[in-house]
Amino acid sequence: MWHDTYLSTVLGPDYAHARAHLLPHLFDALTAHALMLDAQGVSQADRAVAGLRVLRRDPFPPHDPCVEDVFFALDQRLAEWDAGAAGALRTALSRNDLDMTLYRLSAREHLLDALRRLLTLRGTLLDLAGREVETVIVAYTHHQPAQPTTLAHYLAAVENVLSRDTERFLGALTRVNLSPMGAVALAGTSFPTDRALTARLLAFDRPVENTYDAVSTSDWQVELAGVVTAAATTLSRTLYDLLLWASRGLISLQHGLTQGSSIMPQKRNPVALEHARAKLGKAVGSAQSVVLCAHNIPFGDVNDPGTDVQPPLHAMWQEFGEAVDLLSAALADPRIARAAWRREAEEGDAMVTELADTLARQGGRGFREAHATVKALLARLEASERGVTSTTVEDLHALGVSLSEEELRSALDPAAFVARRTTLGGPAPSVMRPAIAAARTRLEGDWQRQETYLRRFAEARAHLEGDRNHVSLTHASGE
Amino acid sequence: MWHDTYLSTVLGPDYAHARAHLLPHLFDALTAHALMLDAQGVSQADRAVAGLRVLRRDPFPPHDPCVEDVFFALDQRLAEWDAGAAGALRTALSRNDLDMTLYRLSAREHLLDALRRLLTLRGTLLDLAGREVETVIVAYTHHQPAQPTTLAHYLAAVENVLSRDTERFLGALTRVNLSPMGAVALAGTSFPTDRALTARLLAFDRPVENTYDAVSTSDWQVELAGVVTAAATTLSRTLYDLLLWASRGLISLQHGLTQGSSIMPQKRNPVALEHARAKLGKAVGSAQSVVLCAHNIPFGDVNDPGTDVQPPLHAMWQEFGEAVDLLSAALADPRIARAAWRREAEEGDAMVTELADTLARQGGRGFREAHATVKALLARLEASERGVTSTTVEDLHALGVSLSEEELRSALDPAAFVARRTTLGGPAPSVMRPAIAAARTRLEGDWQRQETYLRRFAEARAHLEGDRNHVSLTHASGE
Amino acid sequence: MWHDTYLSTVLGPDYAHARAHLLPHLFDALTAHALMLDAQGVSQADRAVAGLRVLRRDPFPPHDPCVEDVFFALDQRLAEWDAGAAGALRTALSRNDLDMTLYRLSAREHLLDALRRLLTLRGTLLDLAGREVETVIVAYTHHQPAQPTTLAHYLAAVENVLSRDTERFLGALTRVNLSPMGAVALAGTSFPTDRALTARLLAFDRPVENTYDAVSTSDWQVELAGVVTAAATTLSRTLYDLLLWASRGLISLQHGLTQGSSIMPQKRNPVALEHARAKLGKAVGSAQSVVLCAHNIPFGDVNDPGTDVQPPLHAMWQEFGEAVDLLSAALADPRIARAAWRREAEEGDAMVTELADTLARQGGRGFREAHATVKALLARLEASERGVTSTTVEDLHALGVSLSEEELRSALDPAAFVARRTTLGGPAPSVMRPAIAAARTRLEGDWQRQETYLRRFAEARAHLEGDRNHVSLTHASGE
Amino acid sequence: MWHDTYLSTVLGPDYAHARAHLLPHLFDALTAHALMLDAQGVSQADRAVAGLRVLRRDPFPPHDPCVEDVFFALDQRLAEWDAGAAGALRTALSRNDLDMTLYRLSAREHLLDALRRLLTLRGTLLDLAGREVETVIVAYTHHQPAQPTTLAHYLAAVENVLSRDTERFLGALTRVNLSPMGAVALAGTSFPTDRALTARLLAFDRPVENTYDAVSTSDWQVELAGVVTAAATTLSRTLYDLLLWASRGLISLQHGLTQGSSIMPQKRNPVALEHARAKLGKAVGSAQSVVLCAHNIPFGDVNDPGTDVQPPLHAMWQEFGEAVDLLSAALADPRIARAAWRREAEEGDAMVTELADTLARQGGRGFREAHATVKALLARLEASERGVTSTTVEDLHALGVSLSEEELRSALDPAAFVARRTTLGGPAPSVMRPAIAAARTRLEGDWQRQETYLRRFAEARAHLEGDRNHVSLTHASGE
Repeated sequence: MWHDTYLSTVLGPDYAHARAHLLPHLFDALTAHALMLDAQGVSQADRAVAGLRVLRRDPFPPHDPCVEDVFFALDQRLAEWDAGAAGALRTALSRNDLDMTLYRLSAREHLLDALRRLLTLRGTLLDLAGREVETVIVAYTHHQPAQPTTLAHYLAAVENVLSRDTERFLGALTRVNLSPMGAVALAGTSFPTDRALTARLLAFDRPVENTYDAVSTSDWQVELAGVVTAAATTLSRTLYDLLLWASRGLISLQHGLTQGSSIMPQKRNPVALEHARAKLGKAVGSAQSVVLCAHNIPFGDVNDPGTDVQPPLHAMWQEFGEAVDLLSAALADPRIARAAWRREAEEGDAMVTELADTLARQGGRGFREAHATVKALLARLEASERGVTSTTVEDLHALGVSLSEEELRSALDPAAFVARRTTLGGPAPSVMRPAIAAARTRLEGDWQRQETYLRRFAEARAHLEGDRNHVSLTHASGE
Repeated sequence: MWHDTYLSTVLGPDYAHARAHLLPHLFDALTAHALMLDAQGVSQADRAVAGLRVLRRDPFPPHDPCVEDVFFALDQRLAEWDAGAAGALRTALSRNDLDMTLYRLSAREHLLDALRRLLTLRGTLLDLAGREVETVIVAYTHHQPAQPTTLAHYLAAVENVLSRDTERFLGALTRVNLSPMGAVALAGTSFPTDRALTARLLAFDRPVENTYDAVSTSDWQVELAGVVTAAATTLSRTLYDLLLWASRGLISLQHGLTQGSSIMPQKRNPVALEHARAKLGKAVGSAQSVVLCAHNIPFGDVNDPGTDVQPPLHAMWQEFGEAVDLLSAALADPRIARAAWRREAEEGDAMVTELADTLARQGGRGFREAHATVKALLARLEASERGVTSTTVEDLHALGVSLSEEELRSALDPAAFVARRTTLGGPAPSVMRPAIAAARTRLEGDWQRQETYLRRFAEARAHLEGDRNHVSLTHASGE
Repeated sequence: MWHDTYLSTVLGPDYAHARAHLLPHLFDALTAHALMLDAQGVSQADRAVAGLRVLRRDPFPPHDPCVEDVFFALDQRLAEWDAGAAGALRTALSRNDLDMTLYRLSAREHLLDALRRLLTLRGTLLDLAGREVETVIVAYTHHQPAQPTTLAHYLAAVENVLSRDTERFLGALTRVNLSPMGAVALAGTSFPTDRALTARLLAFDRPVENTYDAVSTSDWQVELAGVVTAAATTLSRTLYDLLLWASRGLISLQHGLTQGSSIMPQKRNPVALEHARAKLGKAVGSAQSVVLCAHNIPFGDVNDPGTDVQPPLHAMWQEFGEAVDLLSAALADPRIARAAWRREAEEGDAMVTELADTLARQGGRGFREAHATVKALLARLEASERGVTSTTVEDLHALGVSLSEEELRSALDPAAFVARRTTLGGPAPSVMRPAIAAARTRLEGDWQRQETYLRRFAEARAHLEGDRNHVSLTHASGE
Repeated sequence: MWHDTYLSTVLGPDYAHARAHLLPHLFDALTAHALMLDAQGVSQADRAVAGLRVLRRDPFPPHDPCVEDVFFALDQRLAEWDAGAAGALRTALSRNDLDMTLYRLSAREHLLDALRRLLTLRGTLLDLAGREVETVIVAYTHHQPAQPTTLAHYLAAVENVLSRDTERFLGALTRVNLSPMGAVALAGTSFPTDRALTARLLAFDRPVENTYDAVSTSDWQVELAGVVTAAATTLSRTLYDLLLWASRGLISLQHGLTQGSSIMPQKRNPVALEHARAKLGKAVGSAQSVVLCAHNIPFGDVNDPGTDVQPPLHAMWQEFGEAVDLLSAALADPRIARAAWRREAEEGDAMVTELADTLARQGGRGFREAHATVKALLARLEASERGVTSTTVEDLHALGVSLSEEELRSALDPAAFVARRTTLGGPAPSVMRPAIAAARTRLEGDWQRQETYLRRFAEARAHLEGDRNHVSLTHASGE
């Protein structure tokens, strides 16, 4: 019946993908539909509910080349169980609205799982930050030593970005969690249906209103591609720094996350981080597949943003989630070379901004001149091949400014540099500690939001599966 | 001083871009900084405020190869005007926080402008939909005639997606509209500053809290790339259909939006739509540049997501906005070939779902069998090369089902097909009319949100420019 | 030993991928290395050759969580077979050069397979073109009817582009088919080795000269991403037209390549074409993953363009190859609605360029005026709602030009339009027939090139497997 | 006449782009067409040649909103100069074939210019490599010190990849340098034309044979996007290393390529490299625009891969070329911290592969055991916090192996490590010097190829401009 090429390149793989990843959603959506039909008085719809609850507990058959897809495989099995039930179930139903429903149910599950991983990473970052509030490091800008700060300051910055990614994920969820059910092929139906009930049974926030929109739109998929891309690029940037620090021995991963070499006996490569970077690249590439499948195609029911885009969407979530997990693993308990970091801060010249600030305060001549004076000082030191820490009060006198020895030493001390930066959001431990505590509170709120969704979706499923311990959502809603 | 290559490939073009697009934001940010310094008691900061208010009214000089960028050009001019003012202004200021502030100020302006265009298009879609509530068309799925619906149903579906894009734009704005000012190089400062005040003066919602985050993050740019990509792919899909309809003469653009041919005298090409499609492709490509510039770079202050990404961001907004405008122009007053569309609906076979629905209702045998019966009918008609409209009650008898002549005609009438589809969100005029009215109300709310932002940003600027008619935000806030 | 997360996200999946796709290449590369070592006099290297030939016939073990990868799994098995053999084999060997060799061996196999599919499609296109040399169609430009041409002209154009893609594939192969072996970790070795011999044994064209280049470069992968993208975009454009023609009934696919609907009984969707389009989008997206994994990473041995990029490369080839196969299946035997196409050509106005050409020739006033005259004629006809075919010699007189009735009819006949276009590469059957014949000859040459490579690679493998029927490449080369 | 939106978003900007970048190509293509018409006996075509030669020397008018594009602006000016000439010129001409010709003429010019920059960079790399043949550095793999090699080895590896990019550029040129002229709208013409002559006059290799292909295809643009992407990713990887080295002070740029900070007085940022990285990201993003504009559109004459894609193509070449120039500038004369690099090599443990090699050679027990022995040695040293250079013969004895003091020291000497690696393509100076010389010879050949093209194109233009010193290609070809 089917062309061999079509069987081997489309029907077979699509069936396998759906069987592996979409079956619970298929049963959920059809059961909700049958419950709604029953509530609307469609004859034998109650039999369809019963049949679906029985069949979902059985193993699902592998691909029979005569059967188009998992929907028809189930339709056939239900008809064998009870022809009337199968006939009723097909009322006001199309694979168009059904498939889009499966994809949204799957997407919200992926999204919550990714969110769980992201929240875990945020917690890991805050834990490590909490331990490294006084660990002075040299922050680089434009690939050059810039100013002293703390490891906690850096880690908390990353966590703060991820808290905005969390907002994006939750925002996207409000546009994913809408029900296409009842849109049927595209125009709804001449049967009386209750789309709001089906939506409620599936724990959707509400129906996608316009039925043409419901079966046609790909906006939520492209949005998901975008929010994953945003989070992935931030993490790729963090990985840049972690790998740089690992290459200089400033951090080391625990053994189970490193690999050696078949030829170089000294090697302990921080491969967990490297693979995380590549996985993020692949997540962004998969996101591109999602965009490309939605670009310049008709606005209507077509396969591109339907069946065909599911594997890249799946790959996108998987690569992204695994990268996040690898980062969480790597940052749970890394060795931090605090002494080496402090040495770099003390021996370099990254602290001289504070010297300029001090001069600006002293002289009353403004920062513009102070900056020029410190530049002159650095030229003077370089000419005699001296480091910044060798600066004397005489050096300053020679440039027309005067500081006491104590003022000078304090202006060149990286720890003092950091302690003085009590600006809102600055690195001073006195500022960082409450900032971390506040971040923890915000994270806790995000965990609650994630768990509320999880629970709500689990309860809907339990009801659809016929779990007696759950109240009937159908009747509770007063229909 | 500068290498010729560096001058011609970096400093020159960057100066030109900033001078053309960023100057008002530069003056705004520096004036807000100076007002804050003054409120904090920094000597001569009031002179800096005054100087900036004077200089912003003068023409800004073109690039002097000895001067690095617009900041230093202004710094120099201010120093010529009053050296003390220039010295004060540099207190607790870095190009790091300043530049990121300009980019955010510019981004929110672009975003609101894009939103204005999008809201205009939504209004245009609803207006046209309002006029075409009874225009029956054949909707296609998988590139084949599927079911009758109305042009209004299709257009409202597009508008509904765009209303979700509006949510995305406004959601992104809450993450764009944050103030980096006061983060200075990355670690804040040892001067007492008031980041909340500067944020308020610039009409930002609040500071980006962590100062390292403030100067380093690119998340909001990648998010903007994502939301534009989401809207662009939806519009590219709409353009697919509009161009298809134009190629079949179902719609025609007004003359000012078509072009002829230098060789084919008959041509009136719907080029406005075609260029809109290409512009969307370019907007998505520019969005890719934004992603690529943020991929695998350090998380810290670097040029890639700073100076360098501004031109592609600018191109992204421009191509997107122009595509939206072309669509609005094309849909403001197209010729709709209603008769041709109706003819296609009546002469084809897209209405037979309703025949199956009717049989399902009559026979009580469920939709599964009804579907099979209609398939058998179509095979019978095809065998004798007859169209669906030629179906007789005898044909149905031969297949074991019976409908009255009236029932049969009604089941094959596209207009009746549509009128019966009163499902929530369906195409029946009785459903579409209130749906369009509700969409208009929602659109009105979105316009108000957009305008509230516009007004708030305009008021902040007026205050920074020293417009006497505006209350002083500095003092109103209680400092 | 390994962190659970690392095992489940990296080591496990990578082992599974390598075991499924790379084992023959692993045995080939190691056997060639051992043969080279033996030729260089390394003790017990001959035992390694023997062991590898034995072990490659055994089933390869599934992943043992204590073993890093397939290389160490094989290393261990060989050591169990003969410790000396295993020790010898590791001489002057690193996973760095070995892995890059596997990836190139795998890539050239994928490339030749994709080429086979592409050449098959080219043959299919030429066969169909050969049957449709006289099938007049209306070609569209800017989505409007433009000029009559033939289906053969269109199909041959597509084939011609694909012949250039063939050049690109073969060009890329010359840069893929280079041997990294002997580069060892990156710096070569202090053992005497013969990189040219290993290259020859593996049927590589020659070694990648610089050993640092050999283990570091990703240029050939990104090139492959580019050539697949080029071919994919061309095919996506062809699919646009095929789907448009299918939607208008101008072509129909054989039944085994269409699908019906669960709700709309009339449906025969040309889904093979639609899935082909989506697969091309996914191929381009996977190509993007390849680019992203090579963007902004160190130039040196890292995992991103190594292990990690293999799955997206694999997906890229698979989606691309399947899309090509679906196109070949669809075009092998489609139903062509020749009469409908001719009707469109005769009833429309796409032939009027020839009328202008005729007037330009007659009047001696140049094409510029002739074009204006035909435009005036069309305006005149439109005003009285007449079609172009209703033009009379009187209409022309009224515009100041004169043609005989016969000249006029000939100028408006689409078949005559085509027959007169004997320009080099034009659609006239007298031109198309030899053009198709020439294209067939070129295709034949490309098949020979493809097969020559296939044979050469198969012979190398047979020798490495120890097939006695093959001459020893080691000794034949005079070592 | 034109809708305001269409004027401001399409016609205006397109005219400006064409006027700035395409005029010489427009005159070239039209003059070649006119010369061909004249050779074919078309009346007044000689006047068109003369008129075009006159008009090309005049300033070209800015956009008149009543005129569609530069073609019609020129058509009008020529008609004012001589109506017959303008009429003749329009014979067998369409903007379809003309525009595609302009885009190919422009592309080949861009390609040769990019090639010039790339060849310059290759020369710069080889010059620097020639000076650093003995500069021992530590090469990193997986972000960890791996083995000693030389700076020359690294730089030559980069140059070798770029030599393959040169092949790609030249391969692409053979598919760009084909003439669409004479394809007219798409079907050729009923006038007798000589497409081969027009191609020759424009220094194209030959016509694009099939006329439908000629006006429709975008394959060469997507190929160009691919070859630029391949080169750009390699350079982005090199920049990763250069920026890393700069951040560690191992290389420093000359002053004219660095920038300071407005707040941190010590800063000398290697911004030329950073901007180069961002420019490569933007080049790849622009290449994506090219792909997106060719994805899922009709295969026929449409604006997307025509007018609309020219600005992103232009941006792609510009960003890529400027990045290459910045790299050439940065590598022309950097300060190389040879002593620091040598110190890292001597004090680390990257040389221990050679110790394992030595043990493998001594013991006859194979590399597998030698590797294990060195791992044991490293564990022993680490336990007592000793560095590798402190290894004694006693340490080795304790592990059951014996080397003389001299053998041990030699095995741990990075310079000896390098000198021994005389493998084909290895870093030993004795191997590198001739490798660099061979690379220079290859580069010289590539320069000759580039210059031959340049000269050929310049000669064609001189002839078209009517330069008397050039032989007439029209007549020389015997027409």
